[in-house]
Amino acid sequence: MNLAITDVRLTPILVADPPLLNTQGVHQPYTPRLIVEVVTADGVTGVGETYGDTKYLELARRFAQRLTGRQVNDLNGLFSVADEVSVDSAHVRDQVDVGGLRGVQTADKLRLSVVSGFEVACLDAWGKTLGLPVHALLGGKVRDTVEYSAYLFYKWAAHPARVAAEDDDWGAALDPAGIVAQARRFTERYGFTSFKLKGGVFPPEEEIAAVRALAEAFPGRPLRLDPNGAWSVPTSLRVAEELGDVLEYLEDPALGTPAMAEVAARTGVPLATNMCVTTFAEIKEAFTRDAVQVVLSDHHYWGGLRNTQQLAAVCRTFGVDVSMHSNTHLGISLAAMTHVAATVPGLHHACDSHYPWQSEDVLTERLVFEDGRVTVPDAPGLGVALDRDRLALLHRRWLDDDGALRDRDDAAAMRVADPDWVTPSVPRW
Amino acid sequence: MNLAITDVRLTPILVADPPLLNTQGVHQPYTPRLIVEVVTADGVTGVGETYGDTKYLELARRFAQRLTGRQVNDLNGLFSVADEVSVDSAHVRDQVDVGGLRGVQTADKLRLSVVSGFEVACLDAWGKTLGLPVHALLGGKVRDTVEYSAYLFYKWAAHPARVAAEDDDWGAALDPAGIVAQARRFTERYGFTSFKLKGGVFPPEEEIAAVRALAEAFPGRPLRLDPNGAWSVPTSLRVAEELGDVLEYLEDPALGTPAMAEVAARTGVPLATNMCVTTFAEIKEAFTRDAVQVVLSDHHYWGGLRNTQQLAAVCRTFGVDVSMHSNTHLGISLAAMTHVAATVPGLHHACDSHYPWQSEDVLTERLVFEDGRVTVPDAPGLGVALDRDRLALLHRRWLDDDGALRDRDDAAAMRVADPDWVTPSVPRW
Repeated sequence: MNLAITDVRLTPILVADPPLLNTQGVHQPYTPRLIVEVVTADGVTGVGETYGDTKYLELARRFAQRLTGRQVNDLNGLFSVADEVSVDSAHVRDQVDVGGLRGVQTADKLRLSVVSGFEVACLDAWGKTLGLPVHALLGGKVRDTVEYSAYLFYKWAAHPARVAAEDDDWGAALDPAGIVAQARRFTERYGFTSFKLKGGVFPPEEEIAAVRALAEAFPGRPLRLDPNGAWSVPTSLRVAEELGDVLEYLEDPALGTPAMAEVAARTGVPLATNMCVTTFAEIKEAFTRDAVQVVLSDHHYWGGLRNTQQLAAVCRTFGVDVSMHSNTHLGISLAAMTHVAATVPGLHHACDSHYPWQSEDVLTERLVFEDGRVTVPDAPGLGVALDRDRLALLHRRWLDDDGALRDRDDAAAMRVADPDWVTPSVPRW
Repeated sequence: MNLAITDVRLTPILVADPPLLNTQGVHQPYTPRLIVEVVTADGVTGVGETYGDTKYLELARRFAQRLTGRQVNDLNGLFSVADEVSVDSAHVRDQVDVGGLRGVQTADKLRLSVVSGFEVACLDAWGKTLGLPVHALLGGKVRDTVEYSAYLFYKWAAHPARVAAEDDDWGAALDPAGIVAQARRFTERYGFTSFKLKGGVFPPEEEIAAVRALAEAFPGRPLRLDPNGAWSVPTSLRVAEELGDVLEYLEDPALGTPAMAEVAARTGVPLATNMCVTTFAEIKEAFTRDAVQVVLSDHHYWGGLRNTQQLAAVCRTFGVDVSMHSNTHLGISLAAMTHVAATVPGLHHACDSHYPWQSEDVLTERLVFEDGRVTVPDAPGLGVALDRDRLALLHRRWLDDDGALRDRDDAAAMRVADPDWVTPSVPRW
């Protein structure tokens, strides 16, 4: 058994994404992702996936150069490597991300997002070498399936014509009836029993009406609304008041820990976040102020699967629930999320996943949702296999792009339809 | 590779312990420990060690019955097993431990102490099976050696005659000169460069004088004083004031989080604890009140090596340092401490270890301190081997005991010399 890394391959790709709306704008027709492969001296290849925007790719390339010769099971060492890769020359400053939906973009978060792609690839390679699933390398699964929620979006029927993106077959959803129809399709196709609506798109009254319509169509089901911090504290409190009887939780109604703490102090509706608690450094203030009741972990920006377990331990210690955030991702990351979620005790909320919206993948076989759940893979590693033809095709798309889509920018995508669009200032309502 | 557990062996033993003094009394001539062995279908044996008092042994026996057929790498599953083992029938109630030096004894802590013995044995067996050291199963070492401190005790030259315990060759240490002589021997034998004095034995003035004498004998070296919560808040503050210029930290000067928070608020001397933060449930109050600056983890009562890593993550998140507590233990536990300490980033304080005081062990080869450090073993598993003859001898001693020493009771041991001794009420000074 030789666990030394002999080769690292990075493949940036562009993946089709439907015209899903959020408070910043709309998803681009194609979203960048980065596929990471590590190859060991035994010839075993492990795969990982992370954000693919230029700044991540640049950093990942410099990171990859330092991996050869290291052991795939030296997972703590990945953070030492990250510390060595200077961030100055990656041209990143601590500032609010243009994407804006994942909290403040810091050098640390950027580094950790890159680490996560390599960590997952290393775990996959190590697991394949040992014949053990990734969850077994994380201490063992405590459940056999992981529950996901239906991730509902306001959406257009098609992208404004700019590139030759294929239309999805979901149609438009721009009012309560459209959202309910979308939810119904989610339940019929995948069996989801809890629902999250991405809000912050329309004035709160319209989104309240949509959630009410969901509550009527699916009585008793867990419902969530996530305006990505678009509301003021009074608006947040008003929505909480009006939907308190049907909401499982309200996600990032207002922006930042002080505002969230103010909302939390004045409502009994639990608050979830993937915007004000996105790094370990942000936890202390948020938890001591009781600003959030659920942290939605994204293993990409928290720094991988083992860091997600540590986050879960911190949350458990402070009586805060943990669940999972999702951004446009493929099956590699869904498998990774499922493995780590299987090891976290006391997972009380269905995890989010964009995966049903992704018609394209780089796997030979897509992961499937049954009764709203993904079965935890017991095959060696992540339990997924790369389809190299698909990978090459999506990489070709990235190579052919003039650079306009290599960095996700929902506001720029919106300006294709509405040239006057500017990122709304917060609070928007 | 078959990782299924086919056999579990529990061997209670009694280990010689010198007459070391603390605020509760004195160490017994022999201390109970429990040696745990798990055997896999491949014939690999893993070893662990934990507290051996009757209540631990009873619970461990019932725990062991449920392990056969489980996988040695199903480490998260050990906590599920622990949950299944009802604690009522183990006759334990939430109350202050008679030992009293490790905080409140709860059913949960008792269960976790038992889990830790099995977790370490499972990690050892898994590592031996894979040919990997335990630290590699914990994400990989981030250092090659782990630093320990000299653990100084007030002590008698010999136990009061009751059993035929062999005298140790350290002599008495009952005043500043005796403590300095003991410290000097520690540095000469093991190369330790930081010193901890177990206090709470004599009035604070005498212990202040001992620490002053250490500061003069070893200028600039990190010094610590630990009275096990024997002092009032004003006394704690007075000691902090008088020793502030030479102390690395003051350990558990006063008992309980409210008192520690009061001390912490009024001194710049960092406070360490292994008494007010001993379970995850105790963290929130202590950290939100800034009651402690260093948590001394004991992997036994925190529930094992992976829980210790989680504790370290919680501490790191809240800007609290972590180091390691030690109670009378053998080489198996020292190896386990060394493996996990090797994986914890930012270990800024030398760990405690009683090990130099233990003249007996159950290993074929003792672990050694060089320059105050233990080299992190890279051999498979823990990197230690059981000496079955030694184990049988120490088990025979346990079998031959009339029950008087099977439960550690420092106050009872003190009453052998002083029949009027009662556990001092707190604060003692």
